Amino acid sequence: MSTVGQVIKCKAAVAWEAGKPLSIEEIEVAPPQKHEVRVKILFTSLCHTDVYFWEAKGQNPLFPRIFGHEAGGIVESVGEGVTDLQPGDHVLPIFTGECKECPHCLSEESNMCDLLRINTERGGMINDGKPRFSKDGKPIHHFLGTSTFSEYTVLHVGQVAKINPEAPLDKVCVLSCGMSTGFGATVNVAKPKKGQSVAIFGLGAVGLAAAEGARVCGASRIIGIDLNPNRFEEAKKFGCTEFVNPKDHNKPVQEVIAEMTGGGVDRSVECTGSIQAMISAFECVHDGWGVAVLVGVPNKDDAFQTHPAKFLNERTLKGTFFGNYKPRSDIPGVVEKYMKKELELDKFITHSVPFPEINKAFEYMLAGEGLRCVVRMDA
Amino acid sequence: MSTVGQVIKCKAAVAWEAGKPLSIEEIEVAPPQKHEVRVKILFTSLCHTDVYFWEAKGQNPLFPRIFGHEAGGIVESVGEGVTDLQPGDHVLPIFTGECKECPHCLSEESNMCDLLRINTERGGMINDGKPRFSKDGKPIHHFLGTSTFSEYTVLHVGQVAKINPEAPLDKVCVLSCGMSTGFGATVNVAKPKKGQSVAIFGLGAVGLAAAEGARVCGASRIIGIDLNPNRFEEAKKFGCTEFVNPKDHNKPVQEVIAEMTGGGVDRSVECTGSIQAMISAFECVHDGWGVAVLVGVPNKDDAFQTHPAKFLNERTLKGTFFGNYKPRSDIPGVVEKYMKKELELDKFITHSVPFPEINKAFEYMLAGEGLRCVVRMDA
Repeated sequence: MSTVGQVIKCKAAVAWEAGKPLSIEEIEVAPPQKHEVRVKILFTSLCHTDVYFWEAKGQNPLFPRIFGHEAGGIVESVGEGVTDLQPGDHVLPIFTGECKECPHCLSEESNMCDLLRINTERGGMINDGKPRFSKDGKPIHHFLGTSTFSEYTVLHVGQVAKINPEAPLDKVCVLSCGMSTGFGATVNVAKPKKGQSVAIFGLGAVGLAAAEGARVCGASRIIGIDLNPNRFEEAKKFGCTEFVNPKDHNKPVQEVIAEMTGGGVDRSVECTGSIQAMISAFECVHDGWGVAVLVGVPNKDDAFQTHPAKFLNERTLKGTFFGNYKPRSDIPGVVEKYMKKELELDKFITHSVPFPEINKAFEYMLAGEGLRCVVRMDA
Repeated sequence: MSTVGQVIKCKAAVAWEAGKPLSIEEIEVAPPQKHEVRVKILFTSLCHTDVYFWEAKGQNPLFPRIFGHEAGGIVESVGEGVTDLQPGDHVLPIFTGECKECPHCLSEESNMCDLLRINTERGGMINDGKPRFSKDGKPIHHFLGTSTFSEYTVLHVGQVAKINPEAPLDKVCVLSCGMSTGFGATVNVAKPKKGQSVAIFGLGAVGLAAAEGARVCGASRIIGIDLNPNRFEEAKKFGCTEFVNPKDHNKPVQEVIAEMTGGGVDRSVECTGSIQAMISAFECVHDGWGVAVLVGVPNKDDAFQTHPAKFLNERTLKGTFFGNYKPRSDIPGVVEKYMKKELELDKFITHSVPFPEINKAFEYMLAGEGLRCVVRMDA
């Protein structure tokens, strides 16, 4: 029996309270409205942003809520006005959208859509401000417009990337967020040339995806910087050739890197969010041509500070958001890169759990174990 | 009688003491040594950097000294090992050099030559550390390796750009420094696209050259920012379409510009050296694609400070030096742009004086009168 136009009852992992284990519940998912799409999620992975907002230490708590934003699924039905997706399409939900009409979407350079730019405070759909999720008639909030910790979810069509149906969703789901963010920061923004040196600050999943980008660009030296020395062994798999632990030196890490490289690296990518790492990442690039790229999200009150002569000596500092990828226009192409083996993803997926054990994914992340844990929804 | 290999006696404007009027003296100019060139200067113009080091308020005073670095002349003789210049060549001396061998010269992106990068402290030639100027046997210091306030001067071959002999030296001499710095900052670094908006901070000669660059790039709006409202009338000749005086507003100028432009300008170029203007120039560019370029030289203890989220929203900040032009490789092409009327220079030259009246050029600049005063050496 077709579910089109009907409320679907399905399982979702609901966060009832900040920091408390998710609870698998039977919920109701309303049909998609105008410009919306309902998607059956097959695989979803856990990203640090989910944990951050689940812990809700720094923001207004919004509960009950269904988290999740890295995922892969299949379109179940589409709402009014949706013309470029149809039931059966394989898709990746994306936490930030592309309306294809605003100045940002029309610019070749930006992916910061005016309409669908990431909004962590919003708990309902853009159309009417209301959630499509409920349990026993009580609404449950959305997260980032994706809420992929549910067997079915509803998204604005602008947040859905249609991909090659032959791509394995249990692998390419990680391109929804972290891997594209890091990889894109290097290949789209830092753009190292073949043979150049690249410093990567922070060897978590995003930093390692940035390193993977440097490897794909043909960087000759990929210097990983992290306070945790255990990360270097794993980082070698992602192309890191050298490792610097700032704790091992009694001078600023930017000076250590300058000495290692005859004046500085050609490119750097900052993936920690620490303001000191941002300053170091900028100051460690070579004068004349060095480019530093900021990826990590800083604290609200952080101040970036440096001497302006560092800029005048022809250094460039850029920031990036979601690796400068436009979600609908560009992500299908990144999936193709994986299909053509130009980009490795499998090594990022270190764990996998069935949906009922989703809380284990949180435990792995909180313990700093592994990179990505993929949750199998049908298991 | 040939002067090759001989000491030449000629007139030079010597600065004997900081801040005291220059004195026209008969001096001796030694023949060029290895990798050096002796040039007969025909026209030289006064740039703010000459005045700054002549006043010597912020640096170690180095006197007696022959200032001057914007100029045009003809090669009189060449030293050993000089193969790409010969007597009779028309040239522009440049205050920063290009050895064509160091990593910077070999990089497509940099013009910050390791060997011949600007050095304001050096009073002699690189070859032996000694000056080629003397009066009655007493040495006179060089300035920036150019010292063009002399009928003859000696330069390292790496600081000499060979140009089209048909180019009028009384006009293209201003490409030696200020005009190339501002013009190049826009066309080589900020690179506005046709129809984009550009904010120019500081409407002195360099800022107006940056505006000229924006005009040549086809910018639709060129917003001039200056504390002196009298500058706007002149700025219109250089393409400025709007004017903002920060003093007229009780909020930061970056907010004023954002309101005028629906979120920010596409490009900005900072030509004042004020740290507050640098911060405003960065913060006034549009998120998603805005590029800010720093040109003005800051004070030694200045700190550039902003919130890192301004970068993460996909703004770019770059600095530039001499408009990113490589002196020998690129400046001849800028002269060609002038010859093809793609770049206007005549409007920058607001005054002209014969050599004996060179102190008038200082008076004009100190009074803020006009843009460039060209000194005619043969007058």
